[in-house]
Formats: sequence, structure tokens, C-alpha cells
Amino acid sequence: MATIKDVAKEAGVSVATVSRVINRNGYVQEETRKLVEAAISKLNYLPNEVARSLYFQKSKLIGLIIPDITNPFFPEIARGVEDVLQQNGYRLIIGNSDEDAEKEVRYIETFTQHNVLGVISTSSEEISQWEKLNIPVVLLDRIHHDFPFVCSDQKEGGRLAAQILLDRGSRNITLLRGPKHVRTAYERFFAALEVLGKSQVQFQVLNTSFSFDGALETAGKLFELYPDTDGVIAVNDIVASAVLREALLRGRKIPEEIQIIGFDDIPMSKFLFPALSTIQQPAYEMGKEAARLLLERIRQTDIRKKQIILPVSFVERETTRKAGDGTWQKLQ
Amino acid sequence: MATIKDVAKEAGVSVATVSRVINRNGYVQEETRKLVEAAISKLNYLPNEVARSLYFQKSKLIGLIIPDITNPFFPEIARGVEDVLQQNGYRLIIGNSDEDAEKEVRYIETFTQHNVLGVISTSSEEISQWEKLNIPVVLLDRIHHDFPFVCSDQKEGGRLAAQILLDRGSRNITLLRGPKHVRTAYERFFAALEVLGKSQVQFQVLNTSFSFDGALETAGKLFELYPDTDGVIAVNDIVASAVLREALLRGRKIPEEIQIIGFDDIPMSKFLFPALSTIQQPAYEMGKEAARLLLERIRQTDIRKKQIILPVSFVERETTRKAGDGTWQKLQ
Repeated sequence: MATIKDVAKEAGVSVATVSRVINRNGYVQEETRKLVEAAISKLNYLPNEVARSLYFQKSKLIGLIIPDITNPFFPEIARGVEDVLQQNGYRLIIGNSDEDAEKEVRYIETFTQHNVLGVISTSSEEISQWEKLNIPVVLLDRIHHDFPFVCSDQKEGGRLAAQILLDRGSRNITLLRGPKHVRTAYERFFAALEVLGKSQVQFQVLNTSFSFDGALETAGKLFELYPDTDGVIAVNDIVASAVLREALLRGRKIPEEIQIIGFDDIPMSKFLFPALSTIQQPAYEMGKEAARLLLERIRQTDIRKKQIILPVSFVERETTRKAGDGTWQKLQ
Repeated sequence: MATIKDVAKEAGVSVATVSRVINRNGYVQEETRKLVEAAISKLNYLPNEVARSLYFQKSKLIGLIIPDITNPFFPEIARGVEDVLQQNGYRLIIGNSDEDAEKEVRYIETFTQHNVLGVISTSSEEISQWEKLNIPVVLLDRIHHDFPFVCSDQKEGGRLAAQILLDRGSRNITLLRGPKHVRTAYERFFAALEVLGKSQVQFQVLNTSFSFDGALETAGKLFELYPDTDGVIAVNDIVASAVLREALLRGRKIPEEIQIIGFDDIPMSKFLFPALSTIQQPAYEMGKEAARLLLERIRQTDIRKKQIILPVSFVERETTRKAGDGTWQKLQ
């Protein structure tokens, strides 16, 4: 019967290296790992009954870190991730980071303890943490030079939102700005800002959070500070919904007096009255793409860095005026 | 150095039993497991370096099966579960079953392969699957005689919804009925039905699904079939939102001509205009309670069966009339 020494000899490595491979502890080069596994397989080596059964009970776990599953954008994403994993026999461990770096580090630690094969993060600013890990990481709805990521075309989304309000006659636009550390939101904000800057219309910028409570606060403030606003570019559909409610509460006609455009296209947006016009991010597709990309990287460690940007689209509903419909011009 | 035989002798069990404990394979009585662990600890027995490191890398995983994370009721629940687990150093594996029994069985299998310590299910009708498992299971938002569960007071919720519409003057009520196999929904439906049955008002029952698409379809059908409806008891807030939109689209005054009451109190309900009156289930609290109950059962296997029913409450917003405000009576 083969011993650990036989495996080491066959693979041309030290006994300690074989032990590290079996143990999945410490750093082992991918190539070395493959040599050792081939030797184990060729010699039919049994490390011992217990260790063997544990070793071959390989993890099929993938970690997902999101800011907060109760934000309606993320369940769609998580569902996309999970559907692809499920079809491929993998399972999902999930963590809500609240964009708290410390919490995130703790997730990374325990994910590693559970031998996750890879991680999808829609949260991390703590990129340095990922660099220490010896497992594939894919960023989702986040942008970074040094990591593969999946996101939607934020710049196009921002441009589109601003251009639509301009083309359909808004002349005093309030542009809402999300938390600056979220680079996707910042990119679309900046693209919209650029379009407004080049136009002749009056506009102003108001900060907001992404959260439900923050949205209601923002909406109230908006009409206090800028009562003459006739167009609102919201950071997401939650904030857009809050602005819509506040406008209706104040007796404003939508979209005749004020146009509102959201971002995301969460499922509830079409249930509003008037239904929310918005820039759609393909959240479910983004989740699926991220899962596919991660699995690809798990199966082939030599795969090249990939950065996938999915297209956004304008979903025309009832909070923007009709293109080419001149009726709103009478209000000017 | 101690051997496995020494451990077996010390614990008064067979070598095979010690192996099962180390391996975490096969059934071992809790008491026996403790004896073996005490012996391992006393003799400072090292099964062997590899096995030992794997063995002491204990799983801290909990499984959660939900029907669909994109239904806005479930992210709140999942967040409650995850927050408690996170605080206690546990991690969550999540699966979307789509109420598909086959998918659910596959989740249970792979959860077991990953040595989850317990499972929370908001889905299972496949109770027989749980009985085979040797790990604690807690049902959430589901009701069963033989399992510990956490849910909210469905009967009181159904009664309350019906009574509120009656007290505030609805005289032709449409009661929506969810999928029959979801026992919680069935319980609240039946409680509302009982209240309506004892009243003198005209009422009718219309079937609906819980889903976004199903909701829009239901809303259209409702006003075609029962144009004289002046009160709607919805199965959840999604369906209530769809009914609200459809009513407004048809130019009906809410709540003067039609009162609408939802169920759940999802975060978007307060963003609608008029904002949705609803029966609140404490979803986040339910998730937390289920996680606490499961951890309690994992730590103490002899704990008695516990069934926790959390109270519901009426959240009065703008789709129901004011109590004691007689203005609506002029419409009768």
C-alpha cells in the first residue's frame, strides 16, 4: 500500500507539500497541487480512512457578500447567482456587510474556514483582503482595475437618464447623488452631470443615501429646497418612488409638471401609479454572469482577467413624457 | 502517544464509534459523542495531523430554504436570520426552492454534504425529508404539528383585515385567496372568510398567486368580474399594490370608493400613493426568532419542541378610511 512518502517521490515534491495539499492548509502552487493529486490518484493513496473521506468531500461552496439583501436591487442579483450555482451543483453562503469593512473581513475569514471555492462580492472596498486570498474573486456591481468584475454600463445609464429628461422638456433638473464610495453610482452620477453641464438648463445636485429611510428624507428635502424642480434624476428606484410619492402628496402632476426617472428597475416600479420610468440594470443577468465567470475561473486558474459590462436600457413608463409628444411644451 | 484504541477504552466504546465521531459520519448518540470527545481531549489524542486539522475545523453552517428571495417578504426574513447567525459566528447557506419539492430535496442533500448544523425552512411541504435528517430543523412562516416553527398570528391577521374593512364601511368585499398549499396564507384567508360569513355584507372570493406577474393579472380580473367591489382584502402587499394601481388607473377614489388592505408590510408599501394600509408581519423579527430557536436546539439536543407565534398588527395608512370618521358613510 502506498505511503505519503511514495506520493511525494512520485510527484517530485516534499512530504510536507503533499500534506499541505491533502490538508488544504498553507500555500501550494496550482501546478504542484495538480502533480500531487495526479500522484495520489495514480498510486491510489489513502491518507487514512478519516482524512481521505474528509478530503474527498470537497467543498462546493461559493461565498456572496452583498451590502443588504433587503435593498430590492440585491435579491434579483442573489437569485441570478444562486440559480447558476444551483444548476452547477454549487451552494451559496451569503453575508450582509452593510458596507462595513470590519464585518466584511470577518465574512472573508469564515468563508475561508469553510473552504469556499470562490467569492462574489458586491460590496468590497477592502480589495486588499481579496489579494491575500488564494481563491478566485469576482466583483459584482463594483468596478476595479485588478479584479474580474460584472456590472452594467453605468456611464451610459447616467447619460441616458439626463438626455431623456432634457429631450422631453425638463428645464430645472435635480440630480440626486448617492454615496461617493460606491463607484458604480458615482460613475452614473458623473455621466449625467456631464450631460446637464453641456445643456443650457438650470440644475442642482442633492445628496442622498440608497436606503428606504434615506429616500423619504431626501424626497421631503428636495421639494423644500427646490420647489421649481421639473425633472428628477434619482440614484435608484427606491429614491425615485419616494420622490414620486412626495410630488403627488404636494399635488404636482406627473409627468406634466415634473418628470422622474429612476435607476435599477426593481420589480415594484411597474406597480406604482403612475408607473416609474427608469433605467434598467439587468440585475438577474448580472448575478448569473458573475456566477458563470467565477465558475470559469475556479475550473481554469489560468483564465485571463475578464470584465463584463452589460447594457442598460430605458424602460419607458408613466413618469416621463412621451418623446415627440409636444403637449408638455405648452407648459414651458 | 495515545492511539484510537486508547480513546475507545477510555470512553468505553468501540473503535468504530470513535472513528464515527472523528469522521462525523453515521449516527452517534449525543451522550456517546461527548464521552468520546472528553476522552480525545483527556488523552490529547491526535487522530493524525491531517484528520485532526479537518476535524477541528468544525462546520458553522446553517441552511436556509426559501421559496424565492425576490419576493420582498423574504429578504427581511433572510436578513433577520443572517444577523443572528452572524452575531453568533455562524454562516448561512441559502437556497431558492420555488416551492419545488425536487429542488428542495436536492438542497437538503447538499446541505447535508456540507455538514450544516441545522436548517431553517420557509418552504417545505416535504416534511418527510426533514424527518430523515439527524439535524435540527426549524420551520419559518410555515406551520406543522411535529416541528418547531416560527410564524406570525395568521388567524388574527385575517380576522383583523376583514373586521377593519367592515368597521370602516365596505359593503361589497373581494377576498383574495393565495395558493392553498401555503398553510399560513390559508389560515388567514379562512379567518377573514369566517368574519365575512358572519357579517351581512356581499362578498366574493378570487384566487391569486403571490407573484409579481400573478398580482397584475389578478388586479385586472378583479375589476372585470366584480366592478362593484368597495373593499379588497389582498393576500399580500404585492397583490394589494397591483389592485391599488389598477383601481387608480380606472379612476376610482381610494379609500373613498374602495378600501384596500394588504398583508406583510413590505418596505415599499409606505412609498405608494396613497400609502398602503396593511397587516404587518414582523418578518425581520421572525427571521431572528427562527435563528435563535435553531441555535438553541443545536446547543441543547434535549430541548422541548417550541412553536413561536409572533403578533401581527394593523398599520394604518391611506388605503383604508379613518375609524369613527363618518364621511365615508355618505357614500353608502
